[in-house]
Amino acid sequence: MGKYVQSFSQGNQEQRELLGGKGANLAEMTGLGLPVPPGFTITTRACLDYLQQDGFLKQLLPEIKTHLEQLEKNMGKKFGSSEDPLLISVRSGAAVSMPGMMDTILNIGLNDESVQGLARSTGDEEFALDCYRRLIQMYGEVVLGVPAYHFNHRLEKNDNRADWNLISVFKEIIRGESDSSFPQNPEKQLLGAVEAVFKSWDNRRARVYREANNIPHDLGTAVNVQSMVFGNKGRDCGTGVLFTRNPSTGEPEIYGEFLPNAQGEDVVAGIRTPLDISEMASSFPREYEELKAIADQLEKHYREVQDVEFTIEQGRLFILQTRRGERTADAAIKIATDMVTEELLTRDECILRVKPSELEKKLHRQLDPGQKYEVLGQGLPASPGAATGRAVFTADEAEAWGERDIPVILITSETTPDDIHGILAARGVLTARGGMTSHAAVVARGMGKPAVCGCESIKLDREEKRAQLGEHVIKAGDTITINGGTGEVIQGEAVLKEPELSAATLKLLTWADERRRLGVRANADNGEDARKALELGAQGIGLCRTEHMFMGKERFPLVRQLILSESPEEQSEALEKLLPYQQEDFQEILEVMDGRPVTVRLLDPPLHEFLPQLLDLQQEIFKAEKEGDQATLISKKELFRKTKNMDESNPMMGLRGCRLGIMLPALYRMQVEALAEAGLAVAQNGQSVDLEIMIPLVADARELSFLKKELEEVLEEKVTDQSRISCKIGTMIELPRACLTADEIAGEADFFSFGTNDLTQTTFGFSRDDAEARFLPAYLEDDILPVNPFITIDRKGVGRLIKIAVEDSRQIKPELKLGICGEHGGDPESIHFCEITGFDYVSCSPFRVPVARLAAAQASIRVKSPAL
Amino acid sequence: MGKYVQSFSQGNQEQRELLGGKGANLAEMTGLGLPVPPGFTITTRACLDYLQQDGFLKQLLPEIKTHLEQLEKNMGKKFGSSEDPLLISVRSGAAVSMPGMMDTILNIGLNDESVQGLARSTGDEEFALDCYRRLIQMYGEVVLGVPAYHFNHRLEKNDNRADWNLISVFKEIIRGESDSSFPQNPEKQLLGAVEAVFKSWDNRRARVYREANNIPHDLGTAVNVQSMVFGNKGRDCGTGVLFTRNPSTGEPEIYGEFLPNAQGEDVVAGIRTPLDISEMASSFPREYEELKAIADQLEKHYREVQDVEFTIEQGRLFILQTRRGERTADAAIKIATDMVTEELLTRDECILRVKPSELEKKLHRQLDPGQKYEVLGQGLPASPGAATGRAVFTADEAEAWGERDIPVILITSETTPDDIHGILAARGVLTARGGMTSHAAVVARGMGKPAVCGCESIKLDREEKRAQLGEHVIKAGDTITINGGTGEVIQGEAVLKEPELSAATLKLLTWADERRRLGVRANADNGEDARKALELGAQGIGLCRTEHMFMGKERFPLVRQLILSESPEEQSEALEKLLPYQQEDFQEILEVMDGRPVTVRLLDPPLHEFLPQLLDLQQEIFKAEKEGDQATLISKKELFRKTKNMDESNPMMGLRGCRLGIMLPALYRMQVEALAEAGLAVAQNGQSVDLEIMIPLVADARELSFLKKELEEVLEEKVTDQSRISCKIGTMIELPRACLTADEIAGEADFFSFGTNDLTQTTFGFSRDDAEARFLPAYLEDDILPVNPFITIDRKGVGRLIKIAVEDSRQIKPELKLGICGEHGGDPESIHFCEITGFDYVSCSPFRVPVARLAAAQASIRVKSPAL
Repeated sequence: MGKYVQSFSQGNQEQRELLGGKGANLAEMTGLGLPVPPGFTITTRACLDYLQQDGFLKQLLPEIKTHLEQLEKNMGKKFGSSEDPLLISVRSGAAVSMPGMMDTILNIGLNDESVQGLARSTGDEEFALDCYRRLIQMYGEVVLGVPAYHFNHRLEKNDNRADWNLISVFKEIIRGESDSSFPQNPEKQLLGAVEAVFKSWDNRRARVYREANNIPHDLGTAVNVQSMVFGNKGRDCGTGVLFTRNPSTGEPEIYGEFLPNAQGEDVVAGIRTPLDISEMASSFPREYEELKAIADQLEKHYREVQDVEFTIEQGRLFILQTRRGERTADAAIKIATDMVTEELLTRDECILRVKPSELEKKLHRQLDPGQKYEVLGQGLPASPGAATGRAVFTADEAEAWGERDIPVILITSETTPDDIHGILAARGVLTARGGMTSHAAVVARGMGKPAVCGCESIKLDREEKRAQLGEHVIKAGDTITINGGTGEVIQGEAVLKEPELSAATLKLLTWADERRRLGVRANADNGEDARKALELGAQGIGLCRTEHMFMGKERFPLVRQLILSESPEEQSEALEKLLPYQQEDFQEILEVMDGRPVTVRLLDPPLHEFLPQLLDLQQEIFKAEKEGDQATLISKKELFRKTKNMDESNPMMGLRGCRLGIMLPALYRMQVEALAEAGLAVAQNGQSVDLEIMIPLVADARELSFLKKELEEVLEEKVTDQSRISCKIGTMIELPRACLTADEIAGEADFFSFGTNDLTQTTFGFSRDDAEARFLPAYLEDDILPVNPFITIDRKGVGRLIKIAVEDSRQIKPELKLGICGEHGGDPESIHFCEITGFDYVSCSPFRVPVARLAAAQASIRVKSPAL
Repeated sequence: MGKYVQSFSQGNQEQRELLGGKGANLAEMTGLGLPVPPGFTITTRACLDYLQQDGFLKQLLPEIKTHLEQLEKNMGKKFGSSEDPLLISVRSGAAVSMPGMMDTILNIGLNDESVQGLARSTGDEEFALDCYRRLIQMYGEVVLGVPAYHFNHRLEKNDNRADWNLISVFKEIIRGESDSSFPQNPEKQLLGAVEAVFKSWDNRRARVYREANNIPHDLGTAVNVQSMVFGNKGRDCGTGVLFTRNPSTGEPEIYGEFLPNAQGEDVVAGIRTPLDISEMASSFPREYEELKAIADQLEKHYREVQDVEFTIEQGRLFILQTRRGERTADAAIKIATDMVTEELLTRDECILRVKPSELEKKLHRQLDPGQKYEVLGQGLPASPGAATGRAVFTADEAEAWGERDIPVILITSETTPDDIHGILAARGVLTARGGMTSHAAVVARGMGKPAVCGCESIKLDREEKRAQLGEHVIKAGDTITINGGTGEVIQGEAVLKEPELSAATLKLLTWADERRRLGVRANADNGEDARKALELGAQGIGLCRTEHMFMGKERFPLVRQLILSESPEEQSEALEKLLPYQQEDFQEILEVMDGRPVTVRLLDPPLHEFLPQLLDLQQEIFKAEKEGDQATLISKKELFRKTKNMDESNPMMGLRGCRLGIMLPALYRMQVEALAEAGLAVAQNGQSVDLEIMIPLVADARELSFLKKELEEVLEEKVTDQSRISCKIGTMIELPRACLTADEIAGEADFFSFGTNDLTQTTFGFSRDDAEARFLPAYLEDDILPVNPFITIDRKGVGRLIKIAVEDSRQIKPELKLGICGEHGGDPESIHFCEITGFDYVSCSPFRVPVARLAAAQASIRVKSPAL
């Protein structure tokens, strides 16, 4: 046997790389004794050598011939014979599925003579001529590159698709449109077809597809040469496709379609309406039973839903292909869990089988996939889920309409903390500006509300309460739909599917919880989010951002006063008024979490989010000047001066986090006092309290020790040993220097929580907003970065820093608790990184908690059983 | 012998830590056989134990007594005797000099009885009473804490300072103002004095001083107990201070002052005017010769200029103290080099002896230190040197006055690239806003022009052309002076000292060049800077910033057009026009550097520096609206829209550096084309060209490979093998991720240059401007950071990243050339880091090149000979 060609009877499914997916499965099924039409596979290695070596085909030819002779012997037919000739198909099949990207040629072996043999042996000249005509057309298109429309044009004019006249015309077209003619020599046909498949690996659409799907270019495709069977030879013939389970619902029942007296192409082309496969029970009862048994055998054998193509030729069932069946998210989960019950899969295998992205889809309202809709514009997919509602253009309107229970979508240039009440009231948010971390995006994700941000093509006229998107005008009150998962803005109302966790999903998650080592917490800033988190299985709060608490309507002016205050008295006044609000917020969260750990990050405000926009202020000043309104003029000028004083050129790297805490110790003292009071109140009601106070943006251990001293003073004053409150002080690790000096910082901290968003920003020197608005899309497109590092942790850079931090800090303090609370905490790839790096828990938005539970279990299993 | 006390005759100068500086030198001199009044030292260890253990003094007492008895034997006098009593002084002396911070008590051993013995033995009752009065006063102040003014107040009213009456009054004051009385028991006096010195280590002023000077608190002070000698016993007595060389000029001649019949305090107090020491030659010829011999012996022994205190008591010369002599920068360099000629020092020792900061002072115009001046305000010392000139308030005025050769100081709120012509024309710049990396600061440092930035107390009225600083009003044309080394703004004209490199300095630098391993290059953006750099000894250009080239008057609008262009045509047009300017600039630099390496960084613009301010634009729009100027209105609105489109929330982490190069490849192609053309022109004139093209802000190797491909295309087109141009492509390493993936980047680069300013910003997450304006001063004050990491490399964080990068990249490419071109490249501590990390060169501003040459030599010597 040579090295480039292998009979179906020699291989098995493990040889995917060499035989391609289709070839490996054909070999496997042959090995199982299933009725596969015999044939052989020309390997991917042959393809690669062909693409590299001139004249390689000559070397390959003897091997093909040997296998062809073997096939003739098997089938008892002769290739090219004028009596009952052997006909074969040539199909490409790469190791990785590339649907529709590669080429197929059927009926090879027919020529002017053998077509008569076929007519004689089948007693059906029309059938034979039709087969021949199809071969000439496919050969012309695929091998000789004749554009399809030349053939189709003539086909439309011809009523009779199976006569010698059409065959002559088609041959004529080939001669006219290419520099060759249709070869009468069957071997020449075969070789041309093989070569065409080889070449198709390198054609443009295949390359583009591979690049889009991150498939390497050096895999090559195999070529499957198989004897033809026909489902269109009469009433005892037919063809069909089946799924071994329902691919929409996952129900364990054969599902598929069937067409009597037809070829596979006819099913695909949709010329005739196929029947439900169950109808075979009456028309083809024997074959139906046989088929069901084979489906069952295949599914058990592969331990996976199969998508099977079959043909019945004159009462004889043939299986032409089997492959993994594509399915919906619902079905995927149901099938995997059912297969555990059926003892087809272990629980570990079941957990690995469901993609976290499939689970995520189930957690938000979705557009019903069936419907058609008009997309008006495209923004960034800033917060997942879909929402339908009336367009409003200000937060106040959103609130007003919302109070009357009218669903609204808030459309605005960008949101500020002033707009919180509007976002709260709206079903979804659409902004013209801002990236994935813009105010609107962050707030919406936190609330689990759909948002499309940075839809730059939208033109807003706030005064006139209208927006223009391309030709389309949206007026206040018009109904629109946004899809926060895709960034689409959609005309009118759309049907939405409510999210739900099916019984199968709950079962899957329970199993995942048993398997995972990593804890899963949620990021939640208020009682409602905390309740949602708990409901979705969070074991604690990993990040409670106190700045969001400061954005409420009554609090916001106090915070602004605090920031702009120029005297300690002004400061104290603002802080005193803020304290009860903070305490109330904390108390609710602690009550909901009922003794589970709650990590509260002290204020880390991007100061400018609390400040008025200078451009707006200047505008107001001009207005007041014009109107001669002296009182406003004076107050606005004063506000302008103070605000300009606080203006920072790079607020992300300015007076933030613990830096603000150090410059303004009374602020953090107030927050910790509020926390302590809240904890005490909760403890008095008999609940326990596990509080973790987190200091943000530490770059040096001395920042932490400085603040720790301040805060411990407050705690010692408030919390006694009898208070039944556990209270730890730890820090965010979110700057490269914190990672590099983690040993020193560990000495001062009870826990670390990695803030991977800021860490990614500083490690790359990318501002996320600016990067996503300006250059990150191009970087991803040009493959300068393989993935968006704000979504999946960059292991080489950011990950290396994290590893340094973990190793160095655990050296000092082996029991140090390590978590992650950036958005990466909900990303499966990043969760895998957290598992292997030895984190204790991940924390993510409540809506991603189930995803994290599953991904954590998968990571645990992968580490323990890499072979699975 | 006990463990806590040591006689002068037992110790030596190596025991500084144990005996303190003064004690160790007294012991050393005693060992040399010099006439030191005998005594003993109570060690620093005793001080530390005293501060930690209650009742420690009792333990110490027997040891002190033993030594005191030995001293009595030596001197043939009895402590407390009523006939010729032994008198002793008690002086503190820590290991590190803390001038004026610690306490001294003289004449211990006098009481109501022994004072009469002293009167008898000296035959001078007035002298004896005066000594006693002084003791009571000092003891009262230092040991018993009686405020000095109680004594001084009475002293002023008394003509006779040496009578019993005054003594009684002083005793009375002590009784009244403290809860004890002056002890008559001499041992009690001694013990009280020792305790007071011990305690003084922990007093407030000493703590503050140590904190300010980074001296650890756990050193403790020694106590020197020494027999008294008196220079005020008659005409054969005297006291003085000498330097073994002139401390201002460094001339090798004895320099000092002398007062006949006086005590040391009198010289210090300035009651009598001391004589030049040379006058001793006539009045005390024998003692003068003896003194000169001792001075010579001490200098040779210590191999260092000595500052010596001496007393002549009745014709007998005593040496009371010797220590390292403080000197001016000029003197320091002259003395060190002279000592090499005199074979007192090796060249290595000489190089180590001169502080780089002393050298730096010599490179800028300085305020003449003698004069007095009125400081109007204080800003940041943004660019060193002093300048005097007429106040102007706009760049245009600066240019206009400058053209008439009138020296001006440009005063402005902050500068923008529009102001370059004004900065160029001014002698110095004073801004109200901005930090050490503000536009004004960076440009001024680059030009070697003095600048004071961020002088926030200045109130500017640009319209009225006046500024107010406190009470003082500066009008256009008023003369002011700025000191960029201290940040002072000074009223009126001041006398400035021109910078010069003395013969001694040139000698020192030549020796330094022979010793150093590190190359020294300069950062220079134009021919003039390059010439200056060469003159100051630079071996190449380590950083030529092309964005500064873009800021010229004609170029600036083109760059703005480029940035705001919305069509490729507009872009090409701007680029085409920019090319000849770039080429011209490059050509001049390459000509000047004549074959030395020139590293050119492709454009890394903070985009907003090229854009108009949105607030200004809005103001112009309002103005145009008001005036109904439709044409201006439309054009400004359009500019506003475009500018707002480019607005970034954190420009430092936005579309900069190679990111811009990737988004706009034509820009870098133009720059490289200009470089190639410039190189070719220079080569054609017979000079050689060693060009290093540097790509900024790389975070991933693929950014570099993407751009390299682009640029190599241009180079291949322009530069042939015959062009005699060496041209390498390398990258800045200025982001944490570049350090962490340096192995990959090294594969694509011919060289690395570490941009430690940006690297420090991203590692700490500090924007330098915002940090220095908002919190860095407080951080340094509270010792949260020991030094400003933008001045001296933070070894723990930034340094660790650099080490990772160096190790990983050299693993891949051992020959990779490594340099540093941040401002740290001129900082001696950071240069030491570069030496031990294995860099090839440092690059700094031209004016710091001599400093870097010296510091590099010192680093080399320290690595090779750590014992020096």
